[in-house]
Amino acid sequence: MTDSPASDPNRAAAILTIDLAALAANYRLLATTAAPARCAAVVKADAYGLGIDVAAPALEAAGARDFFVAQLEEGIALRALLPEARIAILNGLAPGCEADYAVHRLLPVLNHPGEIEAWHGFARKTGERQHAFLHIDTGMNRLGLGAGELDRLAAHPDLLAGIDIDLVMSHFACADEAANPMTAAQAATFQAARGRLPKAPASIANSSGIFRGAAYALDLVRPGCALYGVNPTPEAANPMRPVVRLEARILQLRDVDSPMTVGYGATFRVARPTKIATIAMGYADGYLRSLSGRGEVWVAGTRAPLVGRVSMDLVTIDVTDVAEADAQPGALVEVIGPHRDVDAIARDAGTIGYEVLTALGQRYARRTVGAAA
Amino acid sequence: MTDSPASDPNRAAAILTIDLAALAANYRLLATTAAPARCAAVVKADAYGLGIDVAAPALEAAGARDFFVAQLEEGIALRALLPEARIAILNGLAPGCEADYAVHRLLPVLNHPGEIEAWHGFARKTGERQHAFLHIDTGMNRLGLGAGELDRLAAHPDLLAGIDIDLVMSHFACADEAANPMTAAQAATFQAARGRLPKAPASIANSSGIFRGAAYALDLVRPGCALYGVNPTPEAANPMRPVVRLEARILQLRDVDSPMTVGYGATFRVARPTKIATIAMGYADGYLRSLSGRGEVWVAGTRAPLVGRVSMDLVTIDVTDVAEADAQPGALVEVIGPHRDVDAIARDAGTIGYEVLTALGQRYARRTVGAAA
Repeated sequence: MTDSPASDPNRAAAILTIDLAALAANYRLLATTAAPARCAAVVKADAYGLGIDVAAPALEAAGARDFFVAQLEEGIALRALLPEARIAILNGLAPGCEADYAVHRLLPVLNHPGEIEAWHGFARKTGERQHAFLHIDTGMNRLGLGAGELDRLAAHPDLLAGIDIDLVMSHFACADEAANPMTAAQAATFQAARGRLPKAPASIANSSGIFRGAAYALDLVRPGCALYGVNPTPEAANPMRPVVRLEARILQLRDVDSPMTVGYGATFRVARPTKIATIAMGYADGYLRSLSGRGEVWVAGTRAPLVGRVSMDLVTIDVTDVAEADAQPGALVEVIGPHRDVDAIARDAGTIGYEVLTALGQRYARRTVGAAA
Repeated sequence: MTDSPASDPNRAAAILTIDLAALAANYRLLATTAAPARCAAVVKADAYGLGIDVAAPALEAAGARDFFVAQLEEGIALRALLPEARIAILNGLAPGCEADYAVHRLLPVLNHPGEIEAWHGFARKTGERQHAFLHIDTGMNRLGLGAGELDRLAAHPDLLAGIDIDLVMSHFACADEAANPMTAAQAATFQAARGRLPKAPASIANSSGIFRGAAYALDLVRPGCALYGVNPTPEAANPMRPVVRLEARILQLRDVDSPMTVGYGATFRVARPTKIATIAMGYADGYLRSLSGRGEVWVAGTRAPLVGRVSMDLVTIDVTDVAEADAQPGALVEVIGPHRDVDAIARDAGTIGYEVLTALGQRYARRTVGAAA
């Protein structure tokens, strides 16, 4: 946030509030649920859009010692924030960047034979043993060693010469679906694979996996979305506390009536005397355009449905049912908050809470509340 | 871009290239088409996601003297880039921030009576005439003076005492639809409104409006999306040059076969021997999750359809038809480029090119090509 008055939350067009106390409470709930396993924190994609600069230190203060990001660049940035943490790079060993992992003490998650070979070569070149995590694919078919690659590694353990595997890991594909048999099948495949590899601590559970049975916790769990308030058990009430609050300011009010239309494409045809408010937020701020005509915001506790299309910088809402004193230029409306959580917005948009979070834009005035503890 | 080797385009996971020569050529085409009207440049939302720090100076070098952003904060940042330009703030006068507009020489677009009153008050308080643009709504019902508000202003011109209106403007709702009668109706409403206000230069045409008839150019046109390569005439070939190129690197390859599945939710069921590549980009980078199972990328000139769901940091593609030498870890695939433009991706995603651009993420290694001229 700059020191311009426009970024002062008392005046900003839209305000994103991160509740660090809720984030810490979510971490502790997940850690307690998974205990005695260790509980890592996945903070890739700028801590799922919340801001790694505020989220990562809060998570460390809450007890996290192990952190996962996707890309090397993210790891370098995180190392500057957390000098002591263990940091792993999920997307593996970026080609030609071996020395960067060493300098910044970042652990590559070795996903395929080429990465193992490169890390092995780096260990030989430096004359020092190098640490890494090893990823076994058990059904995502995305990253990690496939069955044939595992066979070769099991038959030739010398391929790992010079490498200390500090963790063997895999990743659930369907743990958000309580009854999906793929979760147990993946876990079984993973255990069989572990038996063919050098002995190492193991990890497979993501946020949802933590709630699908204590047996899945193994030595380390790796929650991401649940830390940030997304429901890891969609079939039941959300056990997590909301972390994100988003408010946007009303810029202007307008009385419209039939046969007027609102917005681009004139998609909303006014049917009765209606009061429209235009708020200072749009798809350029990550308020997905698929919410056009489907989303809703809340004004002083009253529901206000979106009308017309979401614009780049503006959203129009129907405030006919809102008390006049509450719907005034300058008033803040609730976009994400107690009446409308991240998962509900995702349903309106036809996506998942993760995307609602990672889409959060760069123009919001951002503030934190709650002491990290 | 930091100086880490991971942000070196030769190694980066994904690379966003902005062609400044194409951007300049697009500006000149729009300016020529609209002449003798002046041609502004709309650079809100970080120049539609391309990066205002590179786009705005290139547009000024190409001849633009008038710039529009949405928010005060954007205007302050743009002023630092362009000391001489005329800069207007579309979202109007941020409450309590009048002095910031004066300090940074930013013109508020006065959208409603409350803003006119505040700017009038600021002129009186400072003892200096203050400049502004005035927005007349002609059917968007979003921002700008409504019919009743215009009546009052026309009846009481003293409300504008102390204010120099440098431009009267409105905004087309449906100019992207060639045959939509709303465009002509809005233009007529606007001309009638102008006649009731103090004489001032006028503007109504956005990118599409520039191509809907010379009469709409008036004194100033305000293109946005067309500058950045989006087709302003969707019913015809795109007259604009592509400005954005996006490439992402293959992380890993995998051979799969029935009855395997790929990705979250196991939504893609493999039907035949298939080669899957996982590339280093996902919805956290603005590659919309609605592209799951619908998008496509190109590998060395061969089409590779998406399979399974778009993940936060990863996308899986079918490279069975790609020559083996071209689909290797480390190879770059074309996400936005000659084979797949922004509008095509938007169609796949069920949105518009504008959102594809403004969603472009923060993790890409960004580079520019082409001299600004």
